[in-house]
Amino acid sequence: MSGNTFGRLFTVTTFGESHGPALGAVVDGCPPGLALSEADLQGDLDRRKPGTSRHTSQRREGDEVRILSGVFEGVTTGAPVALLIENMDQRSKDYSNIAELFRPGHADYTYWQKYGIRDYRGGGRSSARETAVRVAAGGIARKYLQDHLGVRIRGWLAQLGPIELALDDWDAVDTNPFFCAEPGRLSELEDYMDALRKEGDSIGATVGVLARGLPPGLGEPVFDRLDADVAHGLMSINAVRGVEIGAGFASASQKGTEHRDEITPAGFLSNNAGGTLGGISTGQDLVARMALKPTSSIRIPGQSVDIHGEPAEVVTTGRHDPCVGIRATPIAEAMLALVLMDHYLRHRGQNADVDSGTPPIPATPDH
Amino acid sequence: MSGNTFGRLFTVTTFGESHGPALGAVVDGCPPGLALSEADLQGDLDRRKPGTSRHTSQRREGDEVRILSGVFEGVTTGAPVALLIENMDQRSKDYSNIAELFRPGHADYTYWQKYGIRDYRGGGRSSARETAVRVAAGGIARKYLQDHLGVRIRGWLAQLGPIELALDDWDAVDTNPFFCAEPGRLSELEDYMDALRKEGDSIGATVGVLARGLPPGLGEPVFDRLDADVAHGLMSINAVRGVEIGAGFASASQKGTEHRDEITPAGFLSNNAGGTLGGISTGQDLVARMALKPTSSIRIPGQSVDIHGEPAEVVTTGRHDPCVGIRATPIAEAMLALVLMDHYLRHRGQNADVDSGTPPIPATPDH
Amino acid sequence: MSGNTFGRLFTVTTFGESHGPALGAVVDGCPPGLALSEADLQGDLDRRKPGTSRHTSQRREGDEVRILSGVFEGVTTGAPVALLIENMDQRSKDYSNIAELFRPGHADYTYWQKYGIRDYRGGGRSSARETAVRVAAGGIARKYLQDHLGVRIRGWLAQLGPIELALDDWDAVDTNPFFCAEPGRLSELEDYMDALRKEGDSIGATVGVLARGLPPGLGEPVFDRLDADVAHGLMSINAVRGVEIGAGFASASQKGTEHRDEITPAGFLSNNAGGTLGGISTGQDLVARMALKPTSSIRIPGQSVDIHGEPAEVVTTGRHDPCVGIRATPIAEAMLALVLMDHYLRHRGQNADVDSGTPPIPATPDH
Amino acid sequence: MSGNTFGRLFTVTTFGESHGPALGAVVDGCPPGLALSEADLQGDLDRRKPGTSRHTSQRREGDEVRILSGVFEGVTTGAPVALLIENMDQRSKDYSNIAELFRPGHADYTYWQKYGIRDYRGGGRSSARETAVRVAAGGIARKYLQDHLGVRIRGWLAQLGPIELALDDWDAVDTNPFFCAEPGRLSELEDYMDALRKEGDSIGATVGVLARGLPPGLGEPVFDRLDADVAHGLMSINAVRGVEIGAGFASASQKGTEHRDEITPAGFLSNNAGGTLGGISTGQDLVARMALKPTSSIRIPGQSVDIHGEPAEVVTTGRHDPCVGIRATPIAEAMLALVLMDHYLRHRGQNADVDSGTPPIPATPDH
Repeated sequence: MSGNTFGRLFTVTTFGESHGPALGAVVDGCPPGLALSEADLQGDLDRRKPGTSRHTSQRREGDEVRILSGVFEGVTTGAPVALLIENMDQRSKDYSNIAELFRPGHADYTYWQKYGIRDYRGGGRSSARETAVRVAAGGIARKYLQDHLGVRIRGWLAQLGPIELALDDWDAVDTNPFFCAEPGRLSELEDYMDALRKEGDSIGATVGVLARGLPPGLGEPVFDRLDADVAHGLMSINAVRGVEIGAGFASASQKGTEHRDEITPAGFLSNNAGGTLGGISTGQDLVARMALKPTSSIRIPGQSVDIHGEPAEVVTTGRHDPCVGIRATPIAEAMLALVLMDHYLRHRGQNADVDSGTPPIPATPDH
Repeated sequence: MSGNTFGRLFTVTTFGESHGPALGAVVDGCPPGLALSEADLQGDLDRRKPGTSRHTSQRREGDEVRILSGVFEGVTTGAPVALLIENMDQRSKDYSNIAELFRPGHADYTYWQKYGIRDYRGGGRSSARETAVRVAAGGIARKYLQDHLGVRIRGWLAQLGPIELALDDWDAVDTNPFFCAEPGRLSELEDYMDALRKEGDSIGATVGVLARGLPPGLGEPVFDRLDADVAHGLMSINAVRGVEIGAGFASASQKGTEHRDEITPAGFLSNNAGGTLGGISTGQDLVARMALKPTSSIRIPGQSVDIHGEPAEVVTTGRHDPCVGIRATPIAEAMLALVLMDHYLRHRGQNADVDSGTPPIPATPDH
Repeated sequence: MSGNTFGRLFTVTTFGESHGPALGAVVDGCPPGLALSEADLQGDLDRRKPGTSRHTSQRREGDEVRILSGVFEGVTTGAPVALLIENMDQRSKDYSNIAELFRPGHADYTYWQKYGIRDYRGGGRSSARETAVRVAAGGIARKYLQDHLGVRIRGWLAQLGPIELALDDWDAVDTNPFFCAEPGRLSELEDYMDALRKEGDSIGATVGVLARGLPPGLGEPVFDRLDADVAHGLMSINAVRGVEIGAGFASASQKGTEHRDEITPAGFLSNNAGGTLGGISTGQDLVARMALKPTSSIRIPGQSVDIHGEPAEVVTTGRHDPCVGIRATPIAEAMLALVLMDHYLRHRGQNADVDSGTPPIPATPDH
Repeated sequence: MSGNTFGRLFTVTTFGESHGPALGAVVDGCPPGLALSEADLQGDLDRRKPGTSRHTSQRREGDEVRILSGVFEGVTTGAPVALLIENMDQRSKDYSNIAELFRPGHADYTYWQKYGIRDYRGGGRSSARETAVRVAAGGIARKYLQDHLGVRIRGWLAQLGPIELALDDWDAVDTNPFFCAEPGRLSELEDYMDALRKEGDSIGATVGVLARGLPPGLGEPVFDRLDADVAHGLMSINAVRGVEIGAGFASASQKGTEHRDEITPAGFLSNNAGGTLGGISTGQDLVARMALKPTSSIRIPGQSVDIHGEPAEVVTTGRHDPCVGIRATPIAEAMLALVLMDHYLRHRGQNADVDSGTPPIPATPDH
């Protein structure tokens, strides 16, 4: 298959461009019998959608999802579930002035060289708008994991430019437009973003994501390790430049005595591993972080060239997120849900006979 | 397919356990007509193999690879290339005392819960010994990329525990057992490792890897972006806990004006993107880094439990690398080669008709 | 991926139920630059659609296809092409009386046992209505093959129940509702079908399909042989019970001297092979035939059981094709186009370097 | 992945050429805990191997299989199982006289055009010798299906040239070199083959294969129907030109009242469907037949051309099977086992939650 499908047994194929008539996804492999309606998916779509605060793009999209197939009388049938979101607010004229320019740091150069075709309307397929349907598709996985296995997936903003944020209060995350879990620092974030918007610049960010309640055993070594597929899934999100699991890059300066998570009958004593060992889930929290670059679509002029190789100055107007990391939290959650769901089905397919006889080691929640 | 195959058009399937009779790989999809012999692959195997300095495992393995198929009269035929490496030095008795214990930070717990079976001989399938055949398989990709496209792939040790290392001198990399590109600091590395070995502890590391000479256009958005597949490939290496591309995690605190790589007719002015935009190669150096945790197999006792859930103290004797990052450089190079080769064939399959008419923007080598 | 995707590089994922709101397909991997509009696909949809003669189902469907993505300014962009066909004429009440009965020879029993869910509205996902979007998707492949390679794909009705039909006149095929290439026998076909409809019974058929103008070299031994993928594709069409290539089952009673296609500098002397040798195209006509069973949805009562295992008599009313083979010709053409397109891209990806230096042996058209 | 891997969750990747050092297969996805040794696989290898009667190739191969990985202390571990068979009796010189000729009906022309390389040693990769490792790999699937599900797979010779054979006596099949289930006609077969050998010609055949004891529910519509994957698997065997399921091509002339398998509480009344409805197993016998062409390697001269397009007369000496259908029975069984095993794991992965509440309809064994 080509590059627009994710997963092996629980697969998601997405389609649609930023300024085309619609975006959509086909979710294949969902087990039958899952209670599902549009309302189950709309909540996460609303968390991701633009225009909900002054700190994100002012494009107005309802992002209302329709289920076109695979659900009958309120439950999934085992047939593919097609999801459709119509685009409402496409102002293509915003882009006509840059149709032959390459914006520095933007995919328009690479798409042009690869395909010989450029959909200059808002980035076409390379736009983060595509992630809307990932969130919808991930919502199906998320609901199955929650309803059938009791797995809960949550994300948070871990860093916004120079501001590092603690994971203090899960309840705060959904009460502010930043997905910030350290509520005392909201005004600091707002001030930073207001100043940035005034400058016309953009900023990077780090988002964390966590799954709690996983059974041990998910992951298919040696190449389809659970952590490798998490890395694949998160790195496939627009603007992501780094992914780490558990202690991540910090583990490079740890000693073995410090990093290894010792075990007692009462449970693991720490979670530097971030929930996987040997590429297989331990049953502890699966914890990952991803770094997002600052968007290249900014109002401050930059040097570039056009499609003929001639020098040009580029200014991107239009409606853009000054920090794409802000709305990335529900996307990260969705991708994590997709990875876990796929691995759950794969594991069940191949190892349904297994009973090790050993009780799971209790997890030590670290947040 | 299951978890032991990597790639879509250029695929590698590996098999074998640390203490079984042999390790091997089947490389399918190699274009016909590539000049290939065992000697082409042996060089990288020798760079990775244990026992070449006092700073790595003292296990003695020749790691001699045999080509069993797919090559006739010195060139590949288009048929699958099977590679075989026989294990020579398996002292299984080393492990009998830990057959029912879970080593903290080790995959034995997760394999036990997943499969209900434990191959306690040196970690079985979870051992980094499996990576020997990845290096051999990657060597085929590497040779094709070099011979047919002029792409050169190289790696280096970027950090060993507290010691951060510059990329000063490519020529030095293969003249020391650390793959260190800052030759003035070799004695510092040796002293650190000698002290560590005396302690019986282990240490983490960071390895960098770079491909130079790539054409623009490789990568299949939205899920099979080139960077996402690099992340998948590198994170599938034993002990890797983090992967970043270009500016990576540092991009989280960059502004757009700082991060975007401006362009002039003479070329890109920087390479924060690390060689991909929108998941497609730009033609600049593809630069990635991966963080490796300290190995869990250390002599310093740790708390754990056995398969019955009873508490136990664990000490790992046997022959282990105190820093698995040291020998990881050729493995990272191999995985990068596999990703690039696969994407080259996919791109050629789908976009062979394309000619954008725009000359490639010159790359700006940053090392 | 799950079972609703076909192909490796040029992939089609279909969704939708007979009586749901819509059917659709996502075509991923189409090369950029192909001129494409809905009109290019509508012709084959119209050839397949029901209600065009008294010999097929009287369900009234416009089968108008919309392209939702992947085409910009009249050409494909390399992004996935989503196709949507809305259902217009769903009379679900037709089926309420059989919601708990298993129709003999129908998929309702197996779907019920597999999924525990039954979409009794016209067969749900198991309905041949799903093939409408295969025809639309296949139309994209077909256009590429025609425009870029000069490959022409055509099918014909080879047998309808007891009536075997010759392939005499290609031009006749699209001038009658049977796709019959022996125009002198049309009244015989009409009389047979009229009598059958009166009886309330159904009948089987055989459909042939042929691709002319293929380059030699398509097919990926040993498992993904071109003929094996043709068999997969055709057998995946509803009601198909047999597939043969070239001489097919007749080759079981041939001798080697009779079957082998001798070669002269002027070309192959025959085409018993049906266009493939060793699973790779020869450049001769690729010729396949498929046998379709008579539909199980008939008005004549039959013995069966209900979901509780109790005996029941079943009569299927509703609007059904008395011979599903009649409308199967465009479906067979579409599946063949999908297989060939996928193999063309795979071959190009892996063997673009190859030039054997030997001129192709001329083909000998056998029709 | 490329073309040498079969299956999705239970995958087999084969390698090796007719006259290379070895053939092999990697079986990935085998559930852990299956008791397995070489002896379990050798029986079927011995049934397939050449030289066991005067009616097959006189090449002498022990076909002894070694398991290199994935089995520890007598059971599978969940890691990939590598199988190796060394070639013993390669007389490459047999082929030097035809190294630049294309044998009519042989894959050497298509391999040459596709790969630009020709392994003239006995057909290289296109040789049926490759099927030895399919039989070994299929043996693993077969043992799992038998041990864990009670499924029994058997094949028989259904036709040899003009001689059609009944399925009268299963016990006879393994007591004669033809896999003939109608023991009274053995001398007729022997006489036919003796005369054929004298002529220097070859003959086609038909082989049947059957799986008994399958649970209902296996198969993944719409593309990965069980019957479509059976067709793919069987058509991927060398020389196969047709595949049919159940009534197969005969269903083209059946009426619906005749074809549909009526149901009573005591069971299905017939099995025209051949064990699948809607692409999903019914629980009845899965019955398939495949037609094999006569081999093109015969001693009777034929017209052809060489790699320069010049006319040439071809005579194939060497040691060949005059009827490749004779030894194809164990290969067909192996491919069927691989398909069923893969579908069993896929079904279990996606539908393990399902309980329809309806007891399975009893099967009606037809042989």
